[in-house]
Amino acid sequence: MGPSRVWTTSFLLLACACLTSVHGRKYLREELRASHMVHEHQNRASARPSPEAYKSLRDIFFRYEESKSFGADIELTQMELNANQIIMEVKTKEFEEGMIVPHLFTPSQHFFTVLDEIRESPLFQYISKMPKGGVLHAHDTALCSTDYLVELTYRENLWVCQNSTTKSMVSFKFSKNKPEPSDLEDDCTWELMSKVRELNGAKPVDEYLREHLTLYPVQKFEDNNQAWQQFMGIFGLLDGLLLYAPVWADYYYNALEEFYADGVQYLEFRSTLPILYDLDGNKYTEMDTVDIYKQTLDKFMAANPGFIGSKLIYAPLRNVDDATMEHFVRTCIEIKKKYPDFLAGFDLVGQEEPGRPLKDFIPQLLSIPDDIDFIFHAGETNWFGSSVDENLIDAVLLGTKRIGHGFALVKHPLVLQMVKERNIAVEVNPVSNQVLQLVADFRNHPCSHFFADNYPVVISPDDPSFWKASPLSHDFYIAFLGIASAHSDLRLLKKLALNSIAYSSLTPDQKVEAMHKWQTQWDIFISNVVNGETDTNDGAQHRLDTNRID
Amino acid sequence: MGPSRVWTTSFLLLACACLTSVHGRKYLREELRASHMVHEHQNRASARPSPEAYKSLRDIFFRYEESKSFGADIELTQMELNANQIIMEVKTKEFEEGMIVPHLFTPSQHFFTVLDEIRESPLFQYISKMPKGGVLHAHDTALCSTDYLVELTYRENLWVCQNSTTKSMVSFKFSKNKPEPSDLEDDCTWELMSKVRELNGAKPVDEYLREHLTLYPVQKFEDNNQAWQQFMGIFGLLDGLLLYAPVWADYYYNALEEFYADGVQYLEFRSTLPILYDLDGNKYTEMDTVDIYKQTLDKFMAANPGFIGSKLIYAPLRNVDDATMEHFVRTCIEIKKKYPDFLAGFDLVGQEEPGRPLKDFIPQLLSIPDDIDFIFHAGETNWFGSSVDENLIDAVLLGTKRIGHGFALVKHPLVLQMVKERNIAVEVNPVSNQVLQLVADFRNHPCSHFFADNYPVVISPDDPSFWKASPLSHDFYIAFLGIASAHSDLRLLKKLALNSIAYSSLTPDQKVEAMHKWQTQWDIFISNVVNGETDTNDGAQHRLDTNRID
Repeated sequence: MGPSRVWTTSFLLLACACLTSVHGRKYLREELRASHMVHEHQNRASARPSPEAYKSLRDIFFRYEESKSFGADIELTQMELNANQIIMEVKTKEFEEGMIVPHLFTPSQHFFTVLDEIRESPLFQYISKMPKGGVLHAHDTALCSTDYLVELTYRENLWVCQNSTTKSMVSFKFSKNKPEPSDLEDDCTWELMSKVRELNGAKPVDEYLREHLTLYPVQKFEDNNQAWQQFMGIFGLLDGLLLYAPVWADYYYNALEEFYADGVQYLEFRSTLPILYDLDGNKYTEMDTVDIYKQTLDKFMAANPGFIGSKLIYAPLRNVDDATMEHFVRTCIEIKKKYPDFLAGFDLVGQEEPGRPLKDFIPQLLSIPDDIDFIFHAGETNWFGSSVDENLIDAVLLGTKRIGHGFALVKHPLVLQMVKERNIAVEVNPVSNQVLQLVADFRNHPCSHFFADNYPVVISPDDPSFWKASPLSHDFYIAFLGIASAHSDLRLLKKLALNSIAYSSLTPDQKVEAMHKWQTQWDIFISNVVNGETDTNDGAQHRLDTNRID
Repeated sequence: MGPSRVWTTSFLLLACACLTSVHGRKYLREELRASHMVHEHQNRASARPSPEAYKSLRDIFFRYEESKSFGADIELTQMELNANQIIMEVKTKEFEEGMIVPHLFTPSQHFFTVLDEIRESPLFQYISKMPKGGVLHAHDTALCSTDYLVELTYRENLWVCQNSTTKSMVSFKFSKNKPEPSDLEDDCTWELMSKVRELNGAKPVDEYLREHLTLYPVQKFEDNNQAWQQFMGIFGLLDGLLLYAPVWADYYYNALEEFYADGVQYLEFRSTLPILYDLDGNKYTEMDTVDIYKQTLDKFMAANPGFIGSKLIYAPLRNVDDATMEHFVRTCIEIKKKYPDFLAGFDLVGQEEPGRPLKDFIPQLLSIPDDIDFIFHAGETNWFGSSVDENLIDAVLLGTKRIGHGFALVKHPLVLQMVKERNIAVEVNPVSNQVLQLVADFRNHPCSHFFADNYPVVISPDDPSFWKASPLSHDFYIAFLGIASAHSDLRLLKKLALNSIAYSSLTPDQKVEAMHKWQTQWDIFISNVVNGETDTNDGAQHRLDTNRID
């Protein structure tokens, strides 16, 4: 017996499944006809279906598959359909050229190789101008452009500690007088930055900084561990620069500006809440760090009424002892008390592998009141079956609101099922995953599976400052061209924007307002695409320019 | 409102799911208790569960997840449990050392870099000696070791055509007299191989051949297309050597020997059925090629009663016009008529991207009688949404018995669902996928998902000759250490072996006999592992040696 009986029976079932599931009723009659054809076929003598019956069911199958994918539930207006056609034209061109010469396809290469090439892409231009909603996964000291970081090093009273032999920059510090000899392991000597520039010339110094304040252009680390080492090194070098209280405020303000200019209207950022310092030797606390955030945000909101807002996820380092974790918990509760609306939730950060897994801190985590949401990093690994990989299970069992990364989710079908049932958004950070050596070719990123099966996904940049990426546009571009299906269109992009509001920590009322602010910019964007106007983000850009506070 | 209500409700549901689904009843009472604890917790005032209730449910979750994974349904005997402990010890050691220094973990590196290192691995030693069942995906001119290929080039009457300027070898031909000047594009000159060795020395010539008859050691092609170009080039160079009728028989016989010695007892191979030639200028047909296969197999079976058998999947090249496809269909029907048991099915081969997709040949394919199974290559691509990617859909809609590669399956959840419901085995070829540039780090191979969710998987070598791999052991090793979970144990390996028989084209009666032959060797293997005996594959090896036919 051949496969024909199986064929027809299965297809009747499939057709029925389609009939009850396909989004939109317009196909109903057509599908019934196809189903009839198979039924007829079943009663004929021949073994396999006729080419006509096959074609009908093939069409149903494709429509059904499409109906289950990410963005398929979005209905576009006529105007949006027109814009979609324009955007799909440029996407399809890049995709098809890639199929002919795969090694030139930007998402199949290392991000650092194609960083500038992507900026030239017509598709990127559209995405760059698109209002993309909010960013739900980003770390507070890795937000701003390299230009801005270099600008900061021109401030008065900034000292740099240089290794006595190699002259490499080890540490920064703002100080009225020469700081005490460093107690760092490195043997280094403090010098005023202005003096260093005087001695070496501003250009070479700026070049040096550009090279050392990001991971760019190193494409090949020995492995994920070495990439993380380098990565944590940059955080360390930045500390003395950014933890200076006045800079801390300005850095955040500038980040909001840069994100807004890139079409981001909301920012939910993770912070370890480092202890700040100033020139007068004042003592600061974690709460002071939060206060400065809140005041800066209020100032930014006053100047940028089109912006939706920003919230803090308190996310201290995971590699600590139990007592320190208890301190973190108390701090988190205090913040929630003082800023119930500004605090979005709690997380733990730092490379998962060498850090402690969630299961080590169950009593402490369960002691956190349930009006504070967990928004855990989990599964940023490719070690299947390791305790890091299994953080995914603890994250969902602890009731996480979203999952940071979830790169390893495809290895946990039961967690995937819960992600869907409980509507836990996955914060996917494409560029970060490649730079930190989890995936080489974006076409193999597991988010393809999430898109294909309509998981609740948001796209985020993680640490755009460290890879010289735009705040969000590069990640959107990679996700749209390199990870999603060739067929995925404006509906996917729109859904990503909508998800970033839906899965944010905004209250229901705030979400209504957020949607309004986003829709306003979206309508302008769509109209500009259709009308072929080049700079569609003028509104936001203009607001930023005229209200700039330095 | 926090997440606590969600927590408890979901967990009651989860606990119920576990109660009805977990394989084995021994956990039942424990789970009921855990479920009660959650229920009690729900009635208490505190917001989150107690650490104890959490721990119980966490345990259930882990057991439930484990119960759904590939191999979990296999029950091991006491003897097998002992062997398992020994094997898991060496696996865990390699895994944990990898977590400490990831870049030294063999499955995270390019196969060519670690080819020899793997042979030294104690885990590989066990896998190498394990009776692994059958190989269901391999191409007939890429089966034998490089040693054997070089050996073939020592045969009498073999001529080689060398490029007149570069002296690179362009073509082989057996002939009594010097062949006519080649009509190939390359400007080359025919010379006897024996003469070439005389002129250049045997050693350099052999070295040259070793380098040009495999893809080894080139790790980085520009892209998948370039890898395929090189790959097809080797097939071309081999043609004149292998298509000589006497060699054709010997090559197949030797392949069966090498596979059997590697613990493979059954081989279902794909062939384009090329037209052979001999010294006397006799005309051959496709059916002659099949005849030679059948006669050689009969000879091998007579000499090796422990071997299960071998079948042919007729798999001509996909890049042809409709008329040629119709010729293929007629040929296939003829073969089925003459050798109803030897023919396993029909497939199309060649790189999918530049080739024609299945949908182009629907009428021809549907005209094949349904007593001939389809066993299609599909989804050997990372171009999501391309027509190649969508071959997966046609493959299942056409009723394929198995899927060759299915690398892109995770991008098609509905196809995945059908793969499960219709029990369509996925022929996963790990090493091939890396060498042909679909995936860089095996830990990201989509088969992780198939293992995690218990899809019907078999592991195959595709073209082991071209990557200097052992017939099957390297792929098994990579799958077990690099793709499966750290927790996956002997049950996964045993299930892979059992699947290779269950999803073969053997008839039910043949499967009974096959199981018996496999079990005999398996029992010896287990006993040898437990007793610390080193060469467990002695039986097969010995039989081969004493009955060798040259």
